[in-house]
Amino acid sequence: MSIINLDLGLRSYPIYIDSGLLDNAELFATHIRAKRVCIVTNTIVAPLYLENLKANLGDFDFDIDEIILSDGEAEKSLANFERIMSHLLTNEHGRDTTLIALGGGVIGDITGFAAACYQRGIDFIQIPTTVLSQVDSSVGGKTAVNHPLGKNMIGAFYQPKAVIIDIDSLATLPVREFNAGMAEVIKYGILGDYDFFVWLENNIASIKSGDKNTLVKVIEKCCQCKADIVANDETETGVRALLNLGHTFGHAIEAEQGYGNWLHGEAVATGMVLAAKLAVAMNLLEVSDLCRIESLIKSFDLPLEAPETMSCDDFIRHMRRDKKNIGGKLRFIVPTAIGQSEIRDDVTQEILQQIL
Amino acid sequence: MSIINLDLGLRSYPIYIDSGLLDNAELFATHIRAKRVCIVTNTIVAPLYLENLKANLGDFDFDIDEIILSDGEAEKSLANFERIMSHLLTNEHGRDTTLIALGGGVIGDITGFAAACYQRGIDFIQIPTTVLSQVDSSVGGKTAVNHPLGKNMIGAFYQPKAVIIDIDSLATLPVREFNAGMAEVIKYGILGDYDFFVWLENNIASIKSGDKNTLVKVIEKCCQCKADIVANDETETGVRALLNLGHTFGHAIEAEQGYGNWLHGEAVATGMVLAAKLAVAMNLLEVSDLCRIESLIKSFDLPLEAPETMSCDDFIRHMRRDKKNIGGKLRFIVPTAIGQSEIRDDVTQEILQQIL
Repeated sequence: MSIINLDLGLRSYPIYIDSGLLDNAELFATHIRAKRVCIVTNTIVAPLYLENLKANLGDFDFDIDEIILSDGEAEKSLANFERIMSHLLTNEHGRDTTLIALGGGVIGDITGFAAACYQRGIDFIQIPTTVLSQVDSSVGGKTAVNHPLGKNMIGAFYQPKAVIIDIDSLATLPVREFNAGMAEVIKYGILGDYDFFVWLENNIASIKSGDKNTLVKVIEKCCQCKADIVANDETETGVRALLNLGHTFGHAIEAEQGYGNWLHGEAVATGMVLAAKLAVAMNLLEVSDLCRIESLIKSFDLPLEAPETMSCDDFIRHMRRDKKNIGGKLRFIVPTAIGQSEIRDDVTQEILQQIL
Repeated sequence: MSIINLDLGLRSYPIYIDSGLLDNAELFATHIRAKRVCIVTNTIVAPLYLENLKANLGDFDFDIDEIILSDGEAEKSLANFERIMSHLLTNEHGRDTTLIALGGGVIGDITGFAAACYQRGIDFIQIPTTVLSQVDSSVGGKTAVNHPLGKNMIGAFYQPKAVIIDIDSLATLPVREFNAGMAEVIKYGILGDYDFFVWLENNIASIKSGDKNTLVKVIEKCCQCKADIVANDETETGVRALLNLGHTFGHAIEAEQGYGNWLHGEAVATGMVLAAKLAVAMNLLEVSDLCRIESLIKSFDLPLEAPETMSCDDFIRHMRRDKKNIGGKLRFIVPTAIGQSEIRDDVTQEILQQIL
């Protein structure tokens, strides 16, 4: 078992990565404060893993409750947040209940936000079951729900007590979702790790085949990268913003197309290509690097082009609400080489018009 | 000007107490990060202070937005929280906007929670305008909204950048609200400061007359007491729970009667009497101390008796959802003398039946 420790003082926690962890109830037990547990999951994940997890936890005498949401980004809403609050209150959960998020990024984000706010904060554990949530959203304590006017606009920085990543859960993931998650994996290579980018270029087939050792290495590398960045900048006052590479354009695509029509990872893939094109247009990045980025993204069948129906003005309208913006100025993360990136707020409307 | 510093490491902040502070825009300016400000207030407070505050801040070239809610505890809802989120997004507020809570506990709590969650956290400043919010809710970072099943059940620990207390705002406070706030003042004496309790007994007339020097002393004493407790236990894992004296019974009364029919302070007043009666029934408190507590509470025209229509079962039903409860056991703060209190979880149903 690989264990990465995210070092945040009193809020530190371990990230466990291995095959078979969903059966390891002892591991869960060490991170559950009292007797009561409430598992939050969705209609896709529940039939696959819920009963098994409940049975395993039941052996340790936990009192287990559950909330099953529908699947999809549209469920990451304030309405479902309220539903979780009402469920917990109706069932008289106290401050010593532990929430367990069993699912992808949507489940992890809304469960984390519910844990942050229920009675001003209760424990929670992340069990991410998708590539995207394993390498990105489950680590680092960003929790949120969406607002019709913007993604993740209502949320909190709130750290889990543990992240438990069972590689086996990727076997049941639809190919389209697996590939979408790979966009976030590629992101780590582009933004800060040239060697990892090259390793990915050389291991495409092995990753796509679902080889367990390869997948453990992929997840481990990404979690370590994210843990290092988050430990240095928990609440995104500086370097953590680099993790938003591709997300400025990506969030605009998701918002314009309606959440869920494009998968988050697909929007991020296109967003990274647009960020790279922006960098080329600003003479910050070589065209050859743009080509390598496009090529790696394409090898996971991810989209390179923004929706044809989206105008430059559509992008700008959404991007004006981006959380990174300061003093009304749009801010972008741009790659300056493969393995290097920086934050820029000097992007002109003309350059945007040129690339969009 | 009296300045109390609440010491919480990186989250430390000052509490300013004086007459005339609402006119001191320079003081505000030192705690506002960027150009944009959004003042949240209500229909009662706005006509009294909003235009003046805006004019003063306008002199410092701030870009000022406002949200005016209706008055009353019922407004501290998830629906109004959503309304604030929508307003901030529609008006393209960024992470560098500062929220200003101008009003009583309801405005402070919902604005603080909005600041905690908008884009995962923005700055906010408390300007409490009632006794209750000046001595209690504006200090210490407890933010929340209510749920139909319980008060303050959805919230966060999130500290303001400053608390600015202008004593002058108490002059416009209705007598009933002023007195309700005095319940929280008396609470500090009962739970931990015998000398302050005696001082209150000796200064009833001066307090009721609204003498400014006396009021500054009252507010200062309570804020210092609260700051000391919060600095030792920010997220209420221990000693901070003592501040809930009277609140276990009080919240049950509020929930049963519908928020707003009893003022929060009125419910706390009765709650403190019930807690003292509980202590007497458990042989923890002298009857003579109960009499002094009842007498001081009564001198501010506050209720001593629970609503006649409320049964013991009604109380227990609500108290089972109290945030202090651990492992399903009801927990109470009880005075063991005037100036001393402790947490008990060994209160039997029989004793509750006896006092309720």
